[in-house]
Amino acid sequence: MIARTRRRLRLRKRAVALRRGFGRIGRGTAAPASPPSAPAVPKPPSTGGGLQELVRVAPRESAVRDYRVNLVLSSMAADSTFGGVQTAIDLFRAVAGEGQRRRIISVAPLDADVMTGFPDFRLVDAADDSDDPSQLVSVAGPGAATIPIGPRDVFIATFWPTAAFALDVRRWQAATFGAAPERFAYLIQDFEPGFYPRSAQHLLARSTYDAPESTIAIFNTSLLQGGFHDAGIQFPAEFTFEPRLSPALRDVLARPAGERSRTIVVYGRPSKPRNAFPLIVDGLRAWRAADPEAPRWTIVSAGERHVDIDLGGGLTMRSLGKLSMSAYADLLRTSAVGISLMISPHPSYPPLEMAYLGLLVLTNRFGDKDLSSWHTNITSLRSITEAGLAADLTETCRRFVADATVGDHGRLLRADYLDVGPQFPFADEVASLLRMT
Amino acid sequence: MIARTRRRLRLRKRAVALRRGFGRIGRGTAAPASPPSAPAVPKPPSTGGGLQELVRVAPRESAVRDYRVNLVLSSMAADSTFGGVQTAIDLFRAVAGEGQRRRIISVAPLDADVMTGFPDFRLVDAADDSDDPSQLVSVAGPGAATIPIGPRDVFIATFWPTAAFALDVRRWQAATFGAAPERFAYLIQDFEPGFYPRSAQHLLARSTYDAPESTIAIFNTSLLQGGFHDAGIQFPAEFTFEPRLSPALRDVLARPAGERSRTIVVYGRPSKPRNAFPLIVDGLRAWRAADPEAPRWTIVSAGERHVDIDLGGGLTMRSLGKLSMSAYADLLRTSAVGISLMISPHPSYPPLEMAYLGLLVLTNRFGDKDLSSWHTNITSLRSITEAGLAADLTETCRRFVADATVGDHGRLLRADYLDVGPQFPFADEVASLLRMT
Repeated sequence: MIARTRRRLRLRKRAVALRRGFGRIGRGTAAPASPPSAPAVPKPPSTGGGLQELVRVAPRESAVRDYRVNLVLSSMAADSTFGGVQTAIDLFRAVAGEGQRRRIISVAPLDADVMTGFPDFRLVDAADDSDDPSQLVSVAGPGAATIPIGPRDVFIATFWPTAAFALDVRRWQAATFGAAPERFAYLIQDFEPGFYPRSAQHLLARSTYDAPESTIAIFNTSLLQGGFHDAGIQFPAEFTFEPRLSPALRDVLARPAGERSRTIVVYGRPSKPRNAFPLIVDGLRAWRAADPEAPRWTIVSAGERHVDIDLGGGLTMRSLGKLSMSAYADLLRTSAVGISLMISPHPSYPPLEMAYLGLLVLTNRFGDKDLSSWHTNITSLRSITEAGLAADLTETCRRFVADATVGDHGRLLRADYLDVGPQFPFADEVASLLRMT
Repeated sequence: MIARTRRRLRLRKRAVALRRGFGRIGRGTAAPASPPSAPAVPKPPSTGGGLQELVRVAPRESAVRDYRVNLVLSSMAADSTFGGVQTAIDLFRAVAGEGQRRRIISVAPLDADVMTGFPDFRLVDAADDSDDPSQLVSVAGPGAATIPIGPRDVFIATFWPTAAFALDVRRWQAATFGAAPERFAYLIQDFEPGFYPRSAQHLLARSTYDAPESTIAIFNTSLLQGGFHDAGIQFPAEFTFEPRLSPALRDVLARPAGERSRTIVVYGRPSKPRNAFPLIVDGLRAWRAADPEAPRWTIVSAGERHVDIDLGGGLTMRSLGKLSMSAYADLLRTSAVGISLMISPHPSYPPLEMAYLGLLVLTNRFGDKDLSSWHTNITSLRSITEAGLAADLTETCRRFVADATVGDHGRLLRADYLDVGPQFPFADEVASLLRMT
């Protein structure tokens, strides 16, 4: 939870939770307003059997009346400040510079050492109505079921439950202050209804795209933006940015590389359906059964820890779990072939990283996505089936055996992957759209 | 497994499994064909970590050269011969009458007493190439990893893995016999890719709609057909049929009804995302928190057994599990309000049954689906959120309290719900399309 010793003592003004028209995050019916003088007694979450995804925290009136930019994050654990979460923090810093009031709201409990990444922020308790200009606050736990919100608090949402929260807060601001900020910014890094089967979660995730006029959509890749347009979802204000080589991987490239062995690296995340782990397993088994050369290869899986997988005929896929960036880079630079699937219009980073570090990579098409136009080392599967994967893997392995340096001579076809300037050149425009009322 | 004692001994002709171009269900790469004289040695399924859904059984050449209609079922357990499976069997019997060669292929192991429902069929072992005109065969278990297929075996597929199987078998027939039957029939009872998040399963389910010229699509409801057309999926040969009151429920209506109490019946199936169980729980909690009348109601859940759910303030939703048709009918005839959600274009049966048996029913819209035009007792939620459910539930409960007979006076707006004639008047047309080569 929150390290209380680390925050300055200050006069606490426990604002009254105005629950009228808000209920449990605006998703319950209106509960009677508390008497104005009583402190808020937030409901315990009590979601056994109910939806686990929603942000169960209610706004209460803040004395802070100034414009303030809020980033809402679902997760801030140390090991999640890679990838999507780190991108969100980078975007937030670009939109809300040091001179501004800004607040990071974490829906998840905070790691003890999370503040090391935010020396310019102060850890604040959700029960306090702090006016510190740069705050980090967790709304996890029963003690934090309300959070102070002023009339000019604006939001940058990330994962869909945080967008649902931001939309609810805007409704609450309109009811409480007579007006709400005109827009919120929504960092969209995947088509998130697709994370679920048809279900309540699917519908609720989908409904976060239903306020186009209020939404500043910031798409992680124009490919993903295209996927939204194909699905008939469009926003008047849209921005995009493209993937870039991680600086950590760039640093590794300065070190001398080892020799490449007959190793296949699978991006293996059984808990993420979009990475199609079972199909990779079946594809490897079909390849093992059909290709007499298969026993001469080593197969490892990196991404998530899982049990080692028997591929038949004495061949095993060994799980390496989640690697450090350095170990990941070393693995890629000494391996031959990569397999990384992503059942989404988003390109995802591993195929690009694998290709750039010299592996021959198999990945999948999705709609207009075809990463073979991004790097000559990437092959898009002709058929996303176990037979298709097995056939393309046989061919790819043969290419490596014929010339072990073929991947090292691959060509990047998208120069912007190596850009080092500002990743969000549109940040000022987003800031001024957020500021409008 | 199969009750071997119940089948007649006959000369067994173990046909050679021709695996060329088929691999593991056509999804592996081509394995070398077995020498023509050796019996097939099917691979064990070995799907740990792989896709669990696919039908892992390979065809082998049958001596039966006649036209034969095959129904492929994913499940035949006694308690699944309700609903979808029973509909499939009824359709099969309408398409393939007694004078024809016909075979039911069950992918799941068979219940010991399943034959009581099929006195006119003979239980056959998949290892036998039986020429019995009416067969029931299970392809579950390692001993049954091949099944005899002739050049004029045609298929009625049900759940998507059986359609993938039927499509693979047709490819195998083309390779083995030089030609395959022109079409297979596909009983479509939901948009099944929607059962999964974006994943390999989603893609594979979706790919079973990718052979429109070969498909005779039989939609359970024109609403579902409309959902497919909205999604851009259309077949040159399409048939539809509509839901009907179950004869078992019709019989119950002849018995005297009890008095209706303040009871809410939830169609509660936590394992089926499309029934949105968590949203119902949150909606009931929001209703309990907001409506002072709530404690005067009893809430029960029927459908699947689950733990009783605390709704707050001392109110509990009690799980009744799966009820017999008779107990289900008695419950409906003594209760006041029903809640049954279905995140799909398919109407689903419970809301219709509840409404017909006199409950005031809350359900959801989906695309063009709006069941309030089917029965005056049905209300489509204004908003599919916990707040929306709570608000509509308050109103519905008030309607009952004001007049406990209001549901008994409800009107069915779709006369075809009470039809008793042939449910598949197009069966002969399907049969002649299947027969074409």
